[in-house]
Amino acid sequence: MRIEIINTGTELLLGNTLNTHAAWFGRELFKLGLRVSRQSTVPDGEAIHEVLTEAIMRADAILVTGGLGPTSDDLTREITAEVLGLDLITDEAALRSIEAFFALRNYPMADANRKQALVPVGADVLPNPNGTAPGVYIPPRLNGRSNCAIWLLPGPPRELHPMVHAEVVPRLCALSGIDRPVEVLELKFTGIGESDFHQGIDAQLAEISGLEYGYCAHVGEVDLRLIGETAVLEKAREITLAKFSDFLVSDDGSSMEETLVKLLDQRGMTMAAAESCTGGLICHRMTNVSGSSRVFCEGFITYANEAKIRSLSVPQEMIEREGAVSEAVACAMAEGALAASGACIAVAVTGIAGPSGGTPEKPVGTAWVAVALRGSATQAKRFFQPRNRKDFKQAVSQYAMNQVRRQLLDIPASR
Amino acid sequence: MRIEIINTGTELLLGNTLNTHAAWFGRELFKLGLRVSRQSTVPDGEAIHEVLTEAIMRADAILVTGGLGPTSDDLTREITAEVLGLDLITDEAALRSIEAFFALRNYPMADANRKQALVPVGADVLPNPNGTAPGVYIPPRLNGRSNCAIWLLPGPPRELHPMVHAEVVPRLCALSGIDRPVEVLELKFTGIGESDFHQGIDAQLAEISGLEYGYCAHVGEVDLRLIGETAVLEKAREITLAKFSDFLVSDDGSSMEETLVKLLDQRGMTMAAAESCTGGLICHRMTNVSGSSRVFCEGFITYANEAKIRSLSVPQEMIEREGAVSEAVACAMAEGALAASGACIAVAVTGIAGPSGGTPEKPVGTAWVAVALRGSATQAKRFFQPRNRKDFKQAVSQYAMNQVRRQLLDIPASR
Repeated sequence: MRIEIINTGTELLLGNTLNTHAAWFGRELFKLGLRVSRQSTVPDGEAIHEVLTEAIMRADAILVTGGLGPTSDDLTREITAEVLGLDLITDEAALRSIEAFFALRNYPMADANRKQALVPVGADVLPNPNGTAPGVYIPPRLNGRSNCAIWLLPGPPRELHPMVHAEVVPRLCALSGIDRPVEVLELKFTGIGESDFHQGIDAQLAEISGLEYGYCAHVGEVDLRLIGETAVLEKAREITLAKFSDFLVSDDGSSMEETLVKLLDQRGMTMAAAESCTGGLICHRMTNVSGSSRVFCEGFITYANEAKIRSLSVPQEMIEREGAVSEAVACAMAEGALAASGACIAVAVTGIAGPSGGTPEKPVGTAWVAVALRGSATQAKRFFQPRNRKDFKQAVSQYAMNQVRRQLLDIPASR
Repeated sequence: MRIEIINTGTELLLGNTLNTHAAWFGRELFKLGLRVSRQSTVPDGEAIHEVLTEAIMRADAILVTGGLGPTSDDLTREITAEVLGLDLITDEAALRSIEAFFALRNYPMADANRKQALVPVGADVLPNPNGTAPGVYIPPRLNGRSNCAIWLLPGPPRELHPMVHAEVVPRLCALSGIDRPVEVLELKFTGIGESDFHQGIDAQLAEISGLEYGYCAHVGEVDLRLIGETAVLEKAREITLAKFSDFLVSDDGSSMEETLVKLLDQRGMTMAAAESCTGGLICHRMTNVSGSSRVFCEGFITYANEAKIRSLSVPQEMIEREGAVSEAVACAMAEGALAASGACIAVAVTGIAGPSGGTPEKPVGTAWVAVALRGSATQAKRFFQPRNRKDFKQAVSQYAMNQVRRQLLDIPASR
C-alpha cells in the first residue's frame, strides 16, 4: 500500500516550526506494518493544488495535514474538493460542534469559522474534540480521478494525534486489509551503539519471518523497535536479550528517567543528585516524570567548588589535591548528597563539558560518576566522550542514571 | 526563484530520526531572501529517481540531502547522473581526500568508499572537511532536461551545514542575482504572544518596502526575524521596540540564558537558583551556556518540603501555614538560596506542574516566582498557565529567568 503524507504550512518551510508530523506518522504507520512512501511539505494556500494533483495519481492513501483553519490561507478543504471535482456543503452536525466548542469556552464565534464545517458531498466528517476544525475522509469511491483514499487532518499535534488514532487507523486497517494492528515491542538500550546491534544480531533478526524491526539512535541510547505477531516478537526479544540484556534500560518504551522512578517506587526508595558538569539535567529529567516527587527528593547543582565544599561537605583539600574532576571528589559529592538529603541513594557527576577547561590529563569530555547507597561502598566510574556541550551533558546524565539503575536492580523490590 | 529540497533517508520516514533539514534550510534561505517552494522526503534507494525527475521540471534549484554514503542503499549520485543522462567518473582529488580522511584517523578505508569519489562529468566537487562524502554541484548548463541547478549534499548536519555555507550559498546567490546575503536581525521577546505582534505591528511592518519578516513562537518566547537592508531593518526595529521594548530578551539572537550570563558577567555578579516545580531546568539552561561557570554558582533542587526547610532554611511552620506554593515560601526560598550560596542574586520557583496535585485555590499550572537581590526587597510574582508538564516547566523557567533579567537591567554594568 502506497501512502503519502502532505504537510501544508508556510511556517514549516520558513523554519519557524520543526515538522514533527513526518516522524510521528512514520512511527504510527510502522506499528500497523505500513510505510510512508513519500512526505511533502508545501506552503499554505494554493500550493497544495499541485502536490495533491500529482499525489492522487501515485498513492493509494494520502494523509494531508493543515490548512483547515478559518483564515483566508486555509484552503485545503476547498482545493481538495476542486481537484476531485466535488461540491462542498455545510455539514450541520459539524457546524453545531464548532458552535459548541466556542460556547463551552465563552468565546464569540467568528463568521470565518463557519467555513470549517464545509465538507465535500458524501465525505465522512471526522470529529475533533480538541479544536474547531473537523477532519474529512474522502473514500476512494468518491474520488473520480484515481483509486486513492484521502484524509484531511488538522495541523496542531494535540488535535491531529487523537484524530489519527480514532478515525484514521481503523479506516486505514480496513483499506489495507489489516485485521488489527500488529504488536510492537520497544526495547531501549544504553552503553552500546547502533553498530553493535548491526554486527551482533542483525543477521539473526533478518532471518525471522514476519518480523519488522528498526533502530533509533539517540545520544546515550539506542531503541530497537520490533513489530510482528506475539510468537515472532518473543523470538526476536530472546535473541536480542541473549546478547544485550546487560544494556537493557526498558522493554516497555519507558525512558531512563521513567524506569528509575518506577524502580525507586517499587523499592520504596528516594534519590538525590549532586551535579556539576551536567548542571541540573539529571534533576530536570527525573522531575519530567509525573509522580517523581514521591521518589526524587533533592538536587545539589554544585557548579562552583565552594558549593561542593559548603553544600556537600567535600573537603577543600581533596579538591586541591585531586582536582574537582576526580574519583575522590565524585565519591565525596555522592556521599555528601546522601548525608545532606537523607535520600536512600545518591548519584554525583563532576566533569569537563568544554569547550574550554580541559587539560592533557583531564581532557574536555572527561567525567567521574559516583553512586552512594546507604550501607554499601560508594562506586565511581570514569566516563570519557568528547562531544559538544549539550550532547556531553545528555550523554553523561544518561551514563550516571544508568549506574543508579544497575545498583537498584541488585536490590529486591518491596512492592 | 523556485527552490525545492529533497531529503532522502528511510530513517526519516520510519520516524527514527526527526527531519531537521527542512526547517534548517528554511531559515538559511530566508536569510538570503529566498523561500523553499516544496520539501519532499523519500526513502533510501531507488525512490529518488521519481521525485528528482518530477522536481527538475518544476524547480530552478534543487538541494538533495543524503544517499552519498558508501553502502548499496546510497544511490543519490548514481540516480541523479542517470536522470540527467550524465556519465560518472572518479574524481582523483576527491578520492585522495577520502583516503586522507581515513589515514588521519588510522582507519582502514573500505573498497566501498571509493564510489564516494564518483561525480558526473563536468560537475563541481564540493569538499567535505567533516566526512567522507564530497558534495556535488551540477550547474544548469550540464542539465540537458531543464534549466535547473542541482546540489547533492551529505545528510549528517555536521557535514551538511558547513558545506551549505561554504559551497551552496555563494553559488545560490550568484544564480539568483543576490549580490550578498541581506542583513538579518533577530529579536527575541517573552511575556507576549504572536497574536500581540499581529495586532500591534503587522500592519506597520507590512508597509516597509524591502522588508521580509516572520515570527517564530516557542513556549514562553516569540522570535521576530527581520531581513533587509540596514536602513530598512533600523526602521522595522524602531517600530517594533516602540511597542514592545518591555518584552525584549535580546536583539542579537541570544537565548534567555545567554542573555543572563552576559548581563551577570557585565555586572561582575553571580547567580543561584532554588527550584521546586521546574526541577532543575533553570540550572540546566544556565549551564548550557559556555562560560556560565563564571556567573552561575549553585542550584538547589528542593523538590521535597524537607529539602526546602533544610537546604534553604524555609521555616516549616511557613510551609504548613501558607502552603509550599505560596508567595511567602517563594520569597523564603530565594532568600535562603542567596544566603546559602553567597550569590549576588537568586531566583526561586515553587509551583504545581501537574497533572495531579492541584486544588481549587491553587490549580495545576500555578507557580510563585521570587527574586532576591542583595540589598533590595525580594520581589515575588504569581504565574498561572495550565499546560502539560514539560511545557509548564519551560514556561515557568522562562518567566523566572525573565524576572532576573529585568532586575539586572536596573543595575549598571561595571565592565
